[in-house]
Amino acid sequence: MITKANRLQHVKEYYFSTKLREVRQLIAQGKPVINIGIGSPDLDPPMSVSRALQQTLEKNHIHGYQSYQGIPELRNAIAYFYQRHYNVTVHPENEILPLMGSKEGIMHISMAFLNPGDEVLIPNPGYPTYTSVTNLLGAIPVNYDLIEENNWFPDLEKLSKTNLSKVKMMWVNYPHMPTGSKPTKKLFEQLIIFAKQHQVLIINDNPYSFILNDTPKSILEINGAKEVALELNSLSKTFNMAGWRVGMLLGSQEHITTVLQVKSNMDSGMFYGIQQGAIAALKSDINWFVNLNIVYKKRREIAFSIADALGCTYDKDIAGLFVWAKLPKGKKATVVTDELLYTHNVFLAPGTVFGSNGEGYIRISLCVPEETLAQVLNRLTK
Amino acid sequence: MITKANRLQHVKEYYFSTKLREVRQLIAQGKPVINIGIGSPDLDPPMSVSRALQQTLEKNHIHGYQSYQGIPELRNAIAYFYQRHYNVTVHPENEILPLMGSKEGIMHISMAFLNPGDEVLIPNPGYPTYTSVTNLLGAIPVNYDLIEENNWFPDLEKLSKTNLSKVKMMWVNYPHMPTGSKPTKKLFEQLIIFAKQHQVLIINDNPYSFILNDTPKSILEINGAKEVALELNSLSKTFNMAGWRVGMLLGSQEHITTVLQVKSNMDSGMFYGIQQGAIAALKSDINWFVNLNIVYKKRREIAFSIADALGCTYDKDIAGLFVWAKLPKGKKATVVTDELLYTHNVFLAPGTVFGSNGEGYIRISLCVPEETLAQVLNRLTK
Repeated sequence: MITKANRLQHVKEYYFSTKLREVRQLIAQGKPVINIGIGSPDLDPPMSVSRALQQTLEKNHIHGYQSYQGIPELRNAIAYFYQRHYNVTVHPENEILPLMGSKEGIMHISMAFLNPGDEVLIPNPGYPTYTSVTNLLGAIPVNYDLIEENNWFPDLEKLSKTNLSKVKMMWVNYPHMPTGSKPTKKLFEQLIIFAKQHQVLIINDNPYSFILNDTPKSILEINGAKEVALELNSLSKTFNMAGWRVGMLLGSQEHITTVLQVKSNMDSGMFYGIQQGAIAALKSDINWFVNLNIVYKKRREIAFSIADALGCTYDKDIAGLFVWAKLPKGKKATVVTDELLYTHNVFLAPGTVFGSNGEGYIRISLCVPEETLAQVLNRLTK
Repeated sequence: MITKANRLQHVKEYYFSTKLREVRQLIAQGKPVINIGIGSPDLDPPMSVSRALQQTLEKNHIHGYQSYQGIPELRNAIAYFYQRHYNVTVHPENEILPLMGSKEGIMHISMAFLNPGDEVLIPNPGYPTYTSVTNLLGAIPVNYDLIEENNWFPDLEKLSKTNLSKVKMMWVNYPHMPTGSKPTKKLFEQLIIFAKQHQVLIINDNPYSFILNDTPKSILEINGAKEVALELNSLSKTFNMAGWRVGMLLGSQEHITTVLQVKSNMDSGMFYGIQQGAIAALKSDINWFVNLNIVYKKRREIAFSIADALGCTYDKDIAGLFVWAKLPKGKKATVVTDELLYTHNVFLAPGTVFGSNGEGYIRISLCVPEETLAQVLNRLTK
């Protein structure tokens, strides 16, 4: 056996990966475990999406390599989507890079801009992949605190007083996962000022803006944002297409070209049929979003009751696929979630999966039917 | 604008990317350029492939995230395919990793095993991505010579006498692109001995073994190969599914697990419908290969005549999607290909795209219809 690269010494197995293995074992032992831990949409995409893919398969010459930048129609559809929903103008020719999921974009962007030893600002709590990708490239994750008292926004003033000389990039993610905190225009403005002041590339990872949120926002709506900011977006949550692997990166031509240099050396273009499905999704009319959120709202009501049953407090006005709830004082997240798993056969995510500032919180997923959530509630209250 | 990472300083734009832009410009100017430079299969996949994807779209719950390791049925189909066609046993549970194309596997494997400064043996001539990925990770490409006199096989004896202390990996690719040289069992045996002697991880990139070749071989058929070898394979050429992005990595559980550690931090699993299409392809009966090669054989006859018209010599017994032809003595590859482009409106690849040992050679693609090749021949001989 050949030894692995040093970069893998920093990469631990994902908490969910270990825990879900345990869940599968419990189920195999006959335990009726309900999983409300994971944010994988269970609903179907718009009908038009599968239809577009099916129709494509009737055409000729659709099976060959595709351009790294996607077909022009896809980039046009993305530009249209950004104009219509975020009031942001991006040029379809050179300010958009379609991706096979926004997750791969995290690696592409990091490879494009980070040298070993560069520092990267990463939210705590936040999506664990920012940290693992940074580590994989020999760059240095520097956590910045998000706390409830500050609406889970970064304290940029405090951050400015720290030594930022080695910081090259900053990950932000609003609406924020796991807390559901929604961005304000002022937050984005301040982030852009901060980025320009410290010459930091700021990336807003924006997959949740249409879920339980009527006012989708993009960091690119701020004047001059493109000089220092990129935005990642995805069809996974907005159109229930997580498995299709369609994401996108938006920003200045210069930054997009740099990322494309990496991408073109790492993979190839997206399957033509999937691009056609994505185009159909992006053209969905407003009813799609309305109906989707009716479903999530109903589910969320039950999730609130689950949080109540656990004695939690929570902010009702949050976006995204989860309810983020604060446990009664003194309770430890993994103690509570393990207890729920072993005594009530309910699996949900302890806040600590997302960093130390998640201690004392749990995350309830809305990606299961109402009946399932009701079943969980029943187990906790009977 | 934020400065790009140093790793991108080594990465030049792909020759084809620059040249194809020029070809597009020429076409826009009204020139009737015929492109026989690129190895993107123009034929359709087996009927069963699109049908499997279409049928999948009628099912429920197919749109969510998929496992990084693919569905068990896909791994079973790959194991079956390897047993049937290569007489190689790989365990579907842990010796197979489905990939979104074998190209992404080059990055995954390199990230999994290479530290900055490690050396990597890379064939000259060979596929340029081995070099660019190695550079992107700060590892050091060390070319090894392939020459016609040695059937485009590496001179392992000579290589053993060089300082290999920093070499961690070696890329091999048989049937070889661009030369079409077919492997022998003895070659693979010698490579495994070499790899064990020098503790080098050897990866055979094996996408061409079914094209114009009745005796597909895998490096994993050698006893004990899994200790030091991995194999990459792909459906792109074998089943005309280049745009679908389906590849696979095969090897020992330990090596596969290491690569999976990288992959799980970089992307997500493959679209369920594409996995079903891949399964259908892998189960194709023997007629698929026979019929595919009937088409390529006819095309190759005309490609031979094109080579004749250019005064070239060539080996007729080669595998893969190309004819690799030696120019008359003293002729430079890019001089000839530029002349063909500007005077005959024919684009084909100069051997130097693949390294300095490609000087004096050209590569003619078989990925265009017979009529198109006949048109090229006509232009050169009229």
